[in-house]
Amino acid sequence: MTQSRTHNCNELRLSNAGEKVTLVGWYENLRKVSKNLGFLILRDFYGTTQIVVETEEMMEKLDGVNKESTISVTGTVRERSNKNTELPTGEIEVVPEGIEILGKCIYNALPFEINQSREADENTRLKYRYLDLRNPSVKSKIVLRSRIVAELRNKMNELGFLEITTPILTCSSPEGARDYLVPARNHPGKFYALPQAPQQFKQILMASGFDRYFQIAPCFRDEDARADRSPGEFYQLDMEMAFASQEDVFSVVEEVLPPVFEKYGVYKTASKAPFVRIPYLESMDKYGTDKPDLRIDLVLQDATDVMADCGFGPFEGQTVKAVVVDGFTATRKVIDGICAEVEVQTANKAYWFKLDENGEFVGGISKFLQERKETVIAALGLKPGDFIGLTAGKKLAAQKTAGVLRRLLGAASEKHMKKDCYEFCWIVDFPMYEIGEESGELEFCHNPFSMPQGGMNALCNEEPLSILAYQYDLVCNGVELSSGAVRNHDPEIMIKAFELVGLGEEDVKAKFPAMYNAFCYGAPPHAGIAPGVDRMIMLICGEESIREIIPFPMNKNAMDIMMGAPATVDQKQLDDVHIRIQMPEEK
Amino acid sequence: MTQSRTHNCNELRLSNAGEKVTLVGWYENLRKVSKNLGFLILRDFYGTTQIVVETEEMMEKLDGVNKESTISVTGTVRERSNKNTELPTGEIEVVPEGIEILGKCIYNALPFEINQSREADENTRLKYRYLDLRNPSVKSKIVLRSRIVAELRNKMNELGFLEITTPILTCSSPEGARDYLVPARNHPGKFYALPQAPQQFKQILMASGFDRYFQIAPCFRDEDARADRSPGEFYQLDMEMAFASQEDVFSVVEEVLPPVFEKYGVYKTASKAPFVRIPYLESMDKYGTDKPDLRIDLVLQDATDVMADCGFGPFEGQTVKAVVVDGFTATRKVIDGICAEVEVQTANKAYWFKLDENGEFVGGISKFLQERKETVIAALGLKPGDFIGLTAGKKLAAQKTAGVLRRLLGAASEKHMKKDCYEFCWIVDFPMYEIGEESGELEFCHNPFSMPQGGMNALCNEEPLSILAYQYDLVCNGVELSSGAVRNHDPEIMIKAFELVGLGEEDVKAKFPAMYNAFCYGAPPHAGIAPGVDRMIMLICGEESIREIIPFPMNKNAMDIMMGAPATVDQKQLDDVHIRIQMPEEK
Repeated sequence: MTQSRTHNCNELRLSNAGEKVTLVGWYENLRKVSKNLGFLILRDFYGTTQIVVETEEMMEKLDGVNKESTISVTGTVRERSNKNTELPTGEIEVVPEGIEILGKCIYNALPFEINQSREADENTRLKYRYLDLRNPSVKSKIVLRSRIVAELRNKMNELGFLEITTPILTCSSPEGARDYLVPARNHPGKFYALPQAPQQFKQILMASGFDRYFQIAPCFRDEDARADRSPGEFYQLDMEMAFASQEDVFSVVEEVLPPVFEKYGVYKTASKAPFVRIPYLESMDKYGTDKPDLRIDLVLQDATDVMADCGFGPFEGQTVKAVVVDGFTATRKVIDGICAEVEVQTANKAYWFKLDENGEFVGGISKFLQERKETVIAALGLKPGDFIGLTAGKKLAAQKTAGVLRRLLGAASEKHMKKDCYEFCWIVDFPMYEIGEESGELEFCHNPFSMPQGGMNALCNEEPLSILAYQYDLVCNGVELSSGAVRNHDPEIMIKAFELVGLGEEDVKAKFPAMYNAFCYGAPPHAGIAPGVDRMIMLICGEESIREIIPFPMNKNAMDIMMGAPATVDQKQLDDVHIRIQMPEEK
Repeated sequence: MTQSRTHNCNELRLSNAGEKVTLVGWYENLRKVSKNLGFLILRDFYGTTQIVVETEEMMEKLDGVNKESTISVTGTVRERSNKNTELPTGEIEVVPEGIEILGKCIYNALPFEINQSREADENTRLKYRYLDLRNPSVKSKIVLRSRIVAELRNKMNELGFLEITTPILTCSSPEGARDYLVPARNHPGKFYALPQAPQQFKQILMASGFDRYFQIAPCFRDEDARADRSPGEFYQLDMEMAFASQEDVFSVVEEVLPPVFEKYGVYKTASKAPFVRIPYLESMDKYGTDKPDLRIDLVLQDATDVMADCGFGPFEGQTVKAVVVDGFTATRKVIDGICAEVEVQTANKAYWFKLDENGEFVGGISKFLQERKETVIAALGLKPGDFIGLTAGKKLAAQKTAGVLRRLLGAASEKHMKKDCYEFCWIVDFPMYEIGEESGELEFCHNPFSMPQGGMNALCNEEPLSILAYQYDLVCNGVELSSGAVRNHDPEIMIKAFELVGLGEEDVKAKFPAMYNAFCYGAPPHAGIAPGVDRMIMLICGEESIREIIPFPMNKNAMDIMMGAPATVDQKQLDDVHIRIQMPEEK
């Protein structure tokens, strides 16, 4: 065997000067000065070290060796005359007495320069993912992912949660996204499905007597890709607690997440426990969204009373929402850009005016408000220099449009947006029921399996539209990380909840038969949540594309170009599992 | 909300006497003494506590409540007069002032008694797995599994390994077991496959510059069930190290596994580093197997020279192997049983005789050896009282049969088997090539992608059958936990290794195209192994059935009876992924 390494490429310091060492790694670059002098950069997982080749004999060892080959260098550590203070090993260099080629790179040109791989075409990067990952700035995201997941696991274990792995070959679920199917060889005509989430299993674990469950759970949904969603598989920090309330879930999440965000994040501060809790209706009213970015301190105001009848056509008979920004100094061009972007995102217009330093309404729709200036100033609490963004429409549309406007105004206004922090909040008290837009009838608002606040009593005695659910969303910097709920663990309450929307026991059973059966044998009250691991890591890394934080991502078309997946298979493989291909008709 | 618990059911001690507490859990049993006195056992995940109901009012709260309902009990802790020293909470009892039903069990009879669930029919246990898991002795195995996996992860992290999750939706692999297929919606006629192991991905990670990789990796093989193999999915402690030798892998495994086995195992001692290393040929010769159970101190001897020509027909012209057991006191019935079992397992007979206390050969085939008694005694080093087990056949058959005989003799002989320990060993130096039994030509002996010892030089200059591979098996108590290898990372050596068996570059590429491509861009020497997590946990728990150590196992026919998987799916689901069912023809 070759002499194994004595140090890694990020380890040698001035104190090692004079030592004989062996380093191994990738031959990143060689700057040839003459036939007997060259500076070689050796790179391994840990870092880089400069090798100074000073003899013709050693230079010849590198003749014809392509960059990115792996080599072993044995030599003596020496203090550098020209130190590089930016590099941990920048005070030393290694003078080789032996160089051995361990693994040849047979190409003398690469599809892209390793250290510039992020600028390469995405499909090229994915095809040569093994070269892309050699780029320290690409690799570091995967390393970070690993450390974050390990830390989340440790925290959960510390808090008395048991990680239990649930089946990946399971059965198709009647609602939610599209399942991935796996034909069953021993059962012709039947299929396994990959789990969209371990929801049923974790609730069955509660009915099985486990107390605190968690899992870094692989989940599978056959959906098309988005910037923040990889096609195929993704991971959740799935957790569930027996005999637990909403507060118990909140305190676990508030203890586990912020330290990890602070330790590894691009921003170094995160909300402390307890996170702000905002009832759903209040969030819609104040922020125009159920995932508010609380780094922005702007809130929506209602301007319907003072503006709907001002004579400006689009306000007539509508709800009008205002976002008041003090000290907003953006140019007219920026304002127009924001209004255009609001329209792109919401298909609804935004309007504006200003109260200038002289106390005059100027710009935008100001002329419609001149006559009622004092009333408007009083109603919205305006001060000279304020910018007022406005939206109008039916209540929900006006809110949502103003929510987008708020976000864009915040992002354009340094004073109103703390950029360098993670602001968490809980959205709570979601309504249990709503009137369906299409049906005009009572429908479940979100998850029919959440526990209604007030339980059976509320279902029997309260106005259905006023019943709230123990359901909550975890939001960070405007990104929804997860929904969670206190589950409805009581078959009688479940059936009653379904009866209110015209369904019954059979419908309950049809959705989650195993879980329903289990609950009939005595289940504990339980609650849980499942923050998305990939989204958390994107936030922590400050990455916009989910493909940057997955070791081997599929492309947007659900292909692994490197591996060649998906692929054709042999007829025998199809025969074994009793299926045939049915190609779509040509169009 | 209900008052939440103040303590769990395994927490109260004498020092808590007088405190007012709330406990929650499953109502396990109620022994009614009178209409105002009863002893209720409350069970949660952590343990049990006795509740003494002393009033008619409290007794009435339990009227009509079925066992296994979940309840909440608020009351006062009191010292027990009749202490139960076997129970952690046996010094106290709780006198309730309030009892609340949290989750009704609607059935007053269960499919089996919770604490006797292990005796129930297996399909019933699996159907009601949530009740089976309430049995503390069933649950404890799943808890142990979770703790073992957590500890393995921590150890690997401590040793600088990064856990990297590799894709579960990937592509079909051209060899090995049968793949599970997943039809691809966006790519009509193409399929993903679930990975049989992350072998290619982990080697590509090495070529990507990662240094120490591990993963508790889900693996999928569409094979039928066995006692030690669940159909469908299983887990490996998959690891790979760059710039590493066989010794590096050994020292990691030797550091990680024994402490976990000792801490959690039914046996409290395990081999210390370094484990015994046994060359493959020596293992076959001494133990008649490449997975020797080293708890047994017996070894095979060759008796061909002294016995093949003794006149006993089955020995004529064959290799004869002997297992000498001193102090073997088993009855004739036991001996006959062992010989019969050998024949069942190997389809080959075992023979025997004894050297009695008077120095006479007696029993079995002794009459054929009387004439050459002294020669036999000298050749095998026999002492009065020795039992001699014998097998015959072609060399490999005689070895393998003797290997089984050795194991059975050891198990029947207290003196020769240390029962209460984990004996690990490495089997090393597997031959690279062999002459195929069917083809009569040179073939790869095991893994064609292992590095031949001596590398290119050996391939070019040595007799192929004498070339050994850097390939190794990890064995514990006669169970093979894993194969591993120093990988062949060099495309030139790979092609040369294939050429020796009449194959070429195209064949190398066809098997693992992505890996081969990656290696052409400069790969480090690397080595790894992947001990089976399920098998390790079976050994640690001392369980014979793999279904005892999996939270939600499938049955032997690859069905999850609880969930109803596999199941039929809608036509639309099939249409979406471009397949049709092709039912097998009736026979």
